Amino acid sequence: MNQANLTLLLKQLKDGSKTIEEVQNIISQSSVAELGYAGVDLDRAKRCGFPEVIYCQGKSIEWIHGIIKELHQAGQSCFGTRLEPEQISELKKVYSPIEIDPLARTFWLSGTQVIPKIPGTVFVVTAGSTDLPVAREAYETIRVLGAQPELLVDVGVAGLHRLLKHIDRIRKANIVIVVAGMDGALPSVVGGLVDVPVIAVPTSVGYGAAFQGVAPLLTMLNACSANVLVVNIDAGFKAGYTAVLMLRQLQKGN
Amino acid sequence: MNQANLTLLLKQLKDGSKTIEEVQNIISQSSVAELGYAGVDLDRAKRCGFPEVIYCQGKSIEWIHGIIKELHQAGQSCFGTRLEPEQISELKKVYSPIEIDPLARTFWLSGTQVIPKIPGTVFVVTAGSTDLPVAREAYETIRVLGAQPELLVDVGVAGLHRLLKHIDRIRKANIVIVVAGMDGALPSVVGGLVDVPVIAVPTSVGYGAAFQGVAPLLTMLNACSANVLVVNIDAGFKAGYTAVLMLRQLQKGN
Amino acid sequence: MNQANLTLLLKQLKDGSKTIEEVQNIISQSSVAELGYAGVDLDRAKRCGFPEVIYCQGKSIEWIHGIIKELHQAGQSCFGTRLEPEQISELKKVYSPIEIDPLARTFWLSGTQVIPKIPGTVFVVTAGSTDLPVAREAYETIRVLGAQPELLVDVGVAGLHRLLKHIDRIRKANIVIVVAGMDGALPSVVGGLVDVPVIAVPTSVGYGAAFQGVAPLLTMLNACSANVLVVNIDAGFKAGYTAVLMLRQLQKGN
Amino acid sequence: MNQANLTLLLKQLKDGSKTIEEVQNIISQSSVAELGYAGVDLDRAKRCGFPEVIYCQGKSIEWIHGIIKELHQAGQSCFGTRLEPEQISELKKVYSPIEIDPLARTFWLSGTQVIPKIPGTVFVVTAGSTDLPVAREAYETIRVLGAQPELLVDVGVAGLHRLLKHIDRIRKANIVIVVAGMDGALPSVVGGLVDVPVIAVPTSVGYGAAFQGVAPLLTMLNACSANVLVVNIDAGFKAGYTAVLMLRQLQKGN
Amino acid sequence: MNQANLTLLLKQLKDGSKTIEEVQNIISQSSVAELGYAGVDLDRAKRCGFPEVIYCQGKSIEWIHGIIKELHQAGQSCFGTRLEPEQISELKKVYSPIEIDPLARTFWLSGTQVIPKIPGTVFVVTAGSTDLPVAREAYETIRVLGAQPELLVDVGVAGLHRLLKHIDRIRKANIVIVVAGMDGALPSVVGGLVDVPVIAVPTSVGYGAAFQGVAPLLTMLNACSANVLVVNIDAGFKAGYTAVLMLRQLQKGN
Amino acid sequence: MNQANLTLLLKQLKDGSKTIEEVQNIISQSSVAELGYAGVDLDRAKRCGFPEVIYCQGKSIEWIHGIIKELHQAGQSCFGTRLEPEQISELKKVYSPIEIDPLARTFWLSGTQVIPKIPGTVFVVTAGSTDLPVAREAYETIRVLGAQPELLVDVGVAGLHRLLKHIDRIRKANIVIVVAGMDGALPSVVGGLVDVPVIAVPTSVGYGAAFQGVAPLLTMLNACSANVLVVNIDAGFKAGYTAVLMLRQLQKGN
Amino acid sequence: MNQANLTLLLKQLKDGSKTIEEVQNIISQSSVAELGYAGVDLDRAKRCGFPEVIYCQGKSIEWIHGIIKELHQAGQSCFGTRLEPEQISELKKVYSPIEIDPLARTFWLSGTQVIPKIPGTVFVVTAGSTDLPVAREAYETIRVLGAQPELLVDVGVAGLHRLLKHIDRIRKANIVIVVAGMDGALPSVVGGLVDVPVIAVPTSVGYGAAFQGVAPLLTMLNACSANVLVVNIDAGFKAGYTAVLMLRQLQKGN
Amino acid sequence: MNQANLTLLLKQLKDGSKTIEEVQNIISQSSVAELGYAGVDLDRAKRCGFPEVIYCQGKSIEWIHGIIKELHQAGQSCFGTRLEPEQISELKKVYSPIEIDPLARTFWLSGTQVIPKIPGTVFVVTAGSTDLPVAREAYETIRVLGAQPELLVDVGVAGLHRLLKHIDRIRKANIVIVVAGMDGALPSVVGGLVDVPVIAVPTSVGYGAAFQGVAPLLTMLNACSANVLVVNIDAGFKAGYTAVLMLRQLQKGN
Repeated sequence: MNQANLTLLLKQLKDGSKTIEEVQNIISQSSVAELGYAGVDLDRAKRCGFPEVIYCQGKSIEWIHGIIKELHQAGQSCFGTRLEPEQISELKKVYSPIEIDPLARTFWLSGTQVIPKIPGTVFVVTAGSTDLPVAREAYETIRVLGAQPELLVDVGVAGLHRLLKHIDRIRKANIVIVVAGMDGALPSVVGGLVDVPVIAVPTSVGYGAAFQGVAPLLTMLNACSANVLVVNIDAGFKAGYTAVLMLRQLQKGN
Repeated sequence: MNQANLTLLLKQLKDGSKTIEEVQNIISQSSVAELGYAGVDLDRAKRCGFPEVIYCQGKSIEWIHGIIKELHQAGQSCFGTRLEPEQISELKKVYSPIEIDPLARTFWLSGTQVIPKIPGTVFVVTAGSTDLPVAREAYETIRVLGAQPELLVDVGVAGLHRLLKHIDRIRKANIVIVVAGMDGALPSVVGGLVDVPVIAVPTSVGYGAAFQGVAPLLTMLNACSANVLVVNIDAGFKAGYTAVLMLRQLQKGN
Repeated sequence: MNQANLTLLLKQLKDGSKTIEEVQNIISQSSVAELGYAGVDLDRAKRCGFPEVIYCQGKSIEWIHGIIKELHQAGQSCFGTRLEPEQISELKKVYSPIEIDPLARTFWLSGTQVIPKIPGTVFVVTAGSTDLPVAREAYETIRVLGAQPELLVDVGVAGLHRLLKHIDRIRKANIVIVVAGMDGALPSVVGGLVDVPVIAVPTSVGYGAAFQGVAPLLTMLNACSANVLVVNIDAGFKAGYTAVLMLRQLQKGN
Repeated sequence: MNQANLTLLLKQLKDGSKTIEEVQNIISQSSVAELGYAGVDLDRAKRCGFPEVIYCQGKSIEWIHGIIKELHQAGQSCFGTRLEPEQISELKKVYSPIEIDPLARTFWLSGTQVIPKIPGTVFVVTAGSTDLPVAREAYETIRVLGAQPELLVDVGVAGLHRLLKHIDRIRKANIVIVVAGMDGALPSVVGGLVDVPVIAVPTSVGYGAAFQGVAPLLTMLNACSANVLVVNIDAGFKAGYTAVLMLRQLQKGN
Repeated sequence: MNQANLTLLLKQLKDGSKTIEEVQNIISQSSVAELGYAGVDLDRAKRCGFPEVIYCQGKSIEWIHGIIKELHQAGQSCFGTRLEPEQISELKKVYSPIEIDPLARTFWLSGTQVIPKIPGTVFVVTAGSTDLPVAREAYETIRVLGAQPELLVDVGVAGLHRLLKHIDRIRKANIVIVVAGMDGALPSVVGGLVDVPVIAVPTSVGYGAAFQGVAPLLTMLNACSANVLVVNIDAGFKAGYTAVLMLRQLQKGN
Repeated sequence: MNQANLTLLLKQLKDGSKTIEEVQNIISQSSVAELGYAGVDLDRAKRCGFPEVIYCQGKSIEWIHGIIKELHQAGQSCFGTRLEPEQISELKKVYSPIEIDPLARTFWLSGTQVIPKIPGTVFVVTAGSTDLPVAREAYETIRVLGAQPELLVDVGVAGLHRLLKHIDRIRKANIVIVVAGMDGALPSVVGGLVDVPVIAVPTSVGYGAAFQGVAPLLTMLNACSANVLVVNIDAGFKAGYTAVLMLRQLQKGN
Repeated sequence: MNQANLTLLLKQLKDGSKTIEEVQNIISQSSVAELGYAGVDLDRAKRCGFPEVIYCQGKSIEWIHGIIKELHQAGQSCFGTRLEPEQISELKKVYSPIEIDPLARTFWLSGTQVIPKIPGTVFVVTAGSTDLPVAREAYETIRVLGAQPELLVDVGVAGLHRLLKHIDRIRKANIVIVVAGMDGALPSVVGGLVDVPVIAVPTSVGYGAAFQGVAPLLTMLNACSANVLVVNIDAGFKAGYTAVLMLRQLQKGN
Repeated sequence: MNQANLTLLLKQLKDGSKTIEEVQNIISQSSVAELGYAGVDLDRAKRCGFPEVIYCQGKSIEWIHGIIKELHQAGQSCFGTRLEPEQISELKKVYSPIEIDPLARTFWLSGTQVIPKIPGTVFVVTAGSTDLPVAREAYETIRVLGAQPELLVDVGVAGLHRLLKHIDRIRKANIVIVVAGMDGALPSVVGGLVDVPVIAVPTSVGYGAAFQGVAPLLTMLNACSANVLVVNIDAGFKAGYTAVLMLRQLQKGN
């Protein structure tokens, strides 16, 4: 509840259009459905302009059903990430118009609220083939949030010509997301070739001293290109989400 | 050299307005001043719209003088970060209109090129007092790059009312930079209260199990708020720089 | 054997009511049942006021049966933690009035000794849904030790209103246990809102740079709120146990 | 501002004893003195019953003076920790009745508010001689907060008889703080000998694989005694502070 | 080949009892059976007084058969450690008089050479029940090498009386092996109670911040008792082997 | 595209033998087959003299088929590493003259291009039996790239005579690859005995504090022999590949 | 107090030769001088046969004087380790017949009690020159405890002939201590050449990925030679002390 | 002593031209000057073709003088690395024709033996200015060992055009050494542009999550370019030394 809402409420109290009890209830009441195992935010789409997101890993199928039900009743769309294989087959059975991307491990269930389109494009590039699932998670996130993703796969720095061939297209994007495991060197190189923010996503791809993504994470944090920002290992969703947040600045432009 | 420039060059070759040797020279020639100890990029302001930045730590004062001289001759402004105390006193002696912020450890030498103003604001908040030097580095970076920073100090989560008191002002910013050491919890909280990108900067402030910034770095990478991006430990410059890049999207807006 | 007991024994020896051999036996004899694979403390409930606790993970079902049998014969209750799925089904078959909480992975077998009630309340809160098993372990521990737990789930700092809505109830508790994975930021925030001890339990929930609980562990150790104490990763039992120990101070009050 | 205060304010608004603007001001206004480099909490003693604490390390002497001045004007006592040698000599010069413990690296400046006495005792024990500064920080914290500390030095587990000799005295305390570096084994042993909470403080004493306190920190987190809670490396203040919070339960007892 | 053997060979060459070729062959020839996947030392029992040891983990059953066959033909006994379950059932089928300890995961196949008895005793103690497999590996190692092991289980420092009850027996041993996971505090305590070498074996037992044995390993390396030596995590074999080497000093005594 | 090629193209443009569009296409066009999940380099054999290599781990069988198909159509040989068991059986079914080494986990499919023979020899030695798979990966790499590998297994430093017996043969090689897990000490020793480059490959063999290859990796990076170079943990392919690159210098010799 | 002493005391009580109070005093009384900053063990030489050892690092010169004074009054010798330079010059001034080894950073002050000679020899070898201070600490420890050390410097594995030249002398020792930094490979090699226990001491010598001794520590823990035991980084004293404990077995021999 | 030398010796013994004692002396005697603090290899230049190298860090000036003296008397050149500032000024005073490179921290003292020239070139490139000292150490090493180094500074991947401008020159080298701190991405990129071995040297340059060279070290170990080999952090000497060893293959070519 921000200052503006508080002023309104206090005015309503003052002029008698609301009682003390009513105001108190409004203030302390919140749009959270408390299910015992989860507190579902039912106002999120209204408040943030974005649908609620369910991180599915480690949640029982009963919990996921319960959360979807609450969101559905509130007319909200919902987006799920980190689906486990059994969850995918279970969700397919129950929700008929559900969109599932098995590589990205995401699902999308459209609610009654329309997601507004967001201008601008985000380029998602990967260093290798096995970075693709994380890149697809970012791609799907951008897509369901209403923006326009593009995807380019397997352009790691060991064969620089593969990247340079596409560099003019990449330069036209408003944001670039770079997904890389192993040496994690691609964001540094892409960062030096574009003048927009680069969101680097380390992946747990690789072996030995890659340490499940620690090596590319450190590389990216130390990127010598000053326009590189970093998210957690394998955090395709967060990369996509923050990219869309940046695009929204375009709508605010003069 | 992008596709457009290459096309132009090839056309000039074709129509005889340039010889083969001239085209080859242009392609292989670059605007880098090679000093033996540094390759100074003399086209950067033209190319990126931003002045060159000198990372001063570990460089001898002779090297810094040499780099400044090259940039000066090319009419470029230059911005220096991570100044060591002896470097500060040395620079003060030599360059009369230099702007030095000893807390931020930065200097600014204006060139002949004017830095264009960039719309929008960036709010820089710190968890504690001792995070201030890193926050000031971000602040100075934003300022010299032509955007508008605001600064709020010591609003860590242990006293949430200190932050909430200012939350309406913070919510008006286009980007929020959060600087925190120790537990690094502030970006997660701020991230949940605003709907713009949050750039989290871990600092090496703290003791014991803070491990010179590792603890807040990990906290920030794992921030449960989906709008939190992370830069390197103590990387105030990078936070400021990427924030300004995001603001430039405002100028691209419809 | 403390000073008081020793004095008594020596007096009995002096006045002839005990022989040298008897005294020696009492001193060297102990109430430990030695089973070859375990030394079971049969005096614990008498000595500490609490039943014995069996850490089940990695123990064969034969070992668990053997330990339960010894405790049963001594009239003691016993509480088991970290049950593995096969152990659960095995225990269900054998012990009819056993209480098993599959989410908490605990069992409780009541002995002939009554566990006295302990005044005061402990509030257990979790940052996310997947922290629930660890929180339930703490909850069950508090319950079987005779105190009064309360539980609030999924009130992480990304949606601060979910926590603030309940803050008055939380403030009434004597102790607060905060269970969180990922960024582990919740204890710092709760710590700033209450003036009682906060026991922080990092969980291995999360991915990437959460490193199976290392990230929230470090966050909690560095909590900027001065009232935050930490236990091991996923250590719901220890959190519950120490909370009850603190509550016992209430009984000692003037 | 809790529910009770809010109700009162709303009632005053309703009955006309306060205007909308007044209520808004009260809500958004806070008792934080904002100094540019620090936000000083002027209501803390009133709210928590404890004086404000200044973490001095890394703060300039000007900053410390500024903070003390604000607290002094508000009638508050203040307690400083982690004093650096130059800060000690500077403070000695300026504040005449200041109490400085150079080993603990703390200062205490009494304000007009009297700190109420808190019943119960806390036993502080150290494994070695070089753990003494951290133990003294805990000791001073307990003392200035109004409770009764006792101190026992150099009773590490390599000579168990040194500890056992004093065990009856230790068992009488309400809380035991154990300070240890190197192997950090003492809290596990003390924890097995007492039935009250044990607060374990790892210290950065030791060499080689002690890794500046990491080794004892891990030992303590894994303590096999269930009554051991852990704070950050060298965190004598936090240990003392949480111990006093636990003692306050005594006052709440029936 | 040591100096004495070389002298002999050279003398034989000099006096003509051996040809140049013979001497060369003896020097370059060695008693290693080269199997392509392993080089089996066939002289070991003769040279060291101990049978060959096969580390079975990761070896195919064909490799193990091949190595056993070579040793058998050379009349050597062989001792196998780290048996995997499928290896156990396979070995049971093939070698009739084989001794397999499934808890220790070892096998013993007696050759024609008799292992001489070694005087003195080694006490193996464990902190918990789940440390037993590693302790049994040490126990079996000591036994097959001809010395006398004793075993005491579950006497961790959380219940010091369990250890103290047996301390007089432990003090009579020539060497003490202490096996512990979790906090790894037991070797420090035992080390302070005996005046013989203590070999500490960290185990991967535990959870959370035990990090698969890193925590007890660090504890043991930092043991404040000066008589504590350390071997690798779960290295029961190495502990048993080095203990027997120390006992052999008894035979060398005056 | 190097300077020489660029000059040629520009000349062709100048003399009219190529149009602007043709030159542009050649420059931006590349011999990369873009499959959506992989960018396959079809010019590699021509450019580097070596066939393309497919890192199979984590790739679906469909992806592998697709990549092989592209290479086959381009007449290229292909070499696959890190085969998973299901991939092996799948590949065996489809490609009749395929060479699969199940221990090395590699496959080799000969194309129409002949791989030229490379002079010189590489000696691959392992410390233990379980290092053999990694050594075989190196061996196969050397073999398919046209050079001559030799292999010596299980000559770790615990039995130095096993190594010394073969040292004269090893000294004749042009390059030595040393594969070792556990203590990783063998490269230091071999490095001291030969005067050619030694490529050290740490393996994830071992237990406890070997930390899946971290221990031998660190040992090798710190090797006191100055001729030791290091590759990633288990990186048999990279060791073999770089060894062959070094051998190619022989062909460049006068 | 062991069982035998307790029996005696109880008998004296029974027969009236001691009163209850006398017995109680004896039991609870101990020979520890409690100085506030240290608990000095005054019975150690009597109990263990060895003089007390003072770890000087981090202790004030006043504390060291105090401890020496107590030991002196009890007629004990004392041995100090980890002397800091200022401590050395201070001690030299005060104690006239003190023996100080500045390289080993130790001092020795002889008391009235004679240290008995211990049979057998310990060979101390170092890999490099800069390992010498740690080796000297071990050497001095062995010497003052009454045994016979020998020292061989700079025989690291990069030049194996330097070691092999002396191997026959080394093989005659009862125990070998190997001190090494960097790759820490020497203990593995020495361990394979001798059949007595090898005590490995990692040193913090080296740079880069030696990580202040972590690399050699891990190497040594993973030594493939089964007779290698490990102590803490730079722990020359502990290596010397445990070696002497092993030698004492010689005296116990039949 | 290899097989050939042994055969010769044995023949001389057989034919009476050498006595048993003479042969024994030759075998056990070695060309190592044992100075107590160092074993100086006096045959190294003869055996390896290279002068002896002194790692100066941590050695006293007396030790360095002693070692130089021994080498001088044996007619050997000597090369010193890791000079500390005081050592530089001390050496300058004593040895008149000494060559000291203060940036590389090396010295070179020419002996009577001439170092033969080695064909081929090594290109040393650095990512940044502050990597220059390590690069100079490599450069000097190559130079004094008789080969031809070239140096290119500050061509990091953030400004790829700086590197590409020189790529044709780099491609002509036989070996490329890439020195980089921070993200360590340059070797991956250079590796993809050349087809010779690339030796990657991580430097401790950088801040925060660069962790004194750990970040670039991991990047380089995980380099996706297959021709990248790695040496220790800041190991300029080792990079130069191994590069020269590779060049020597050129001399062995047909």
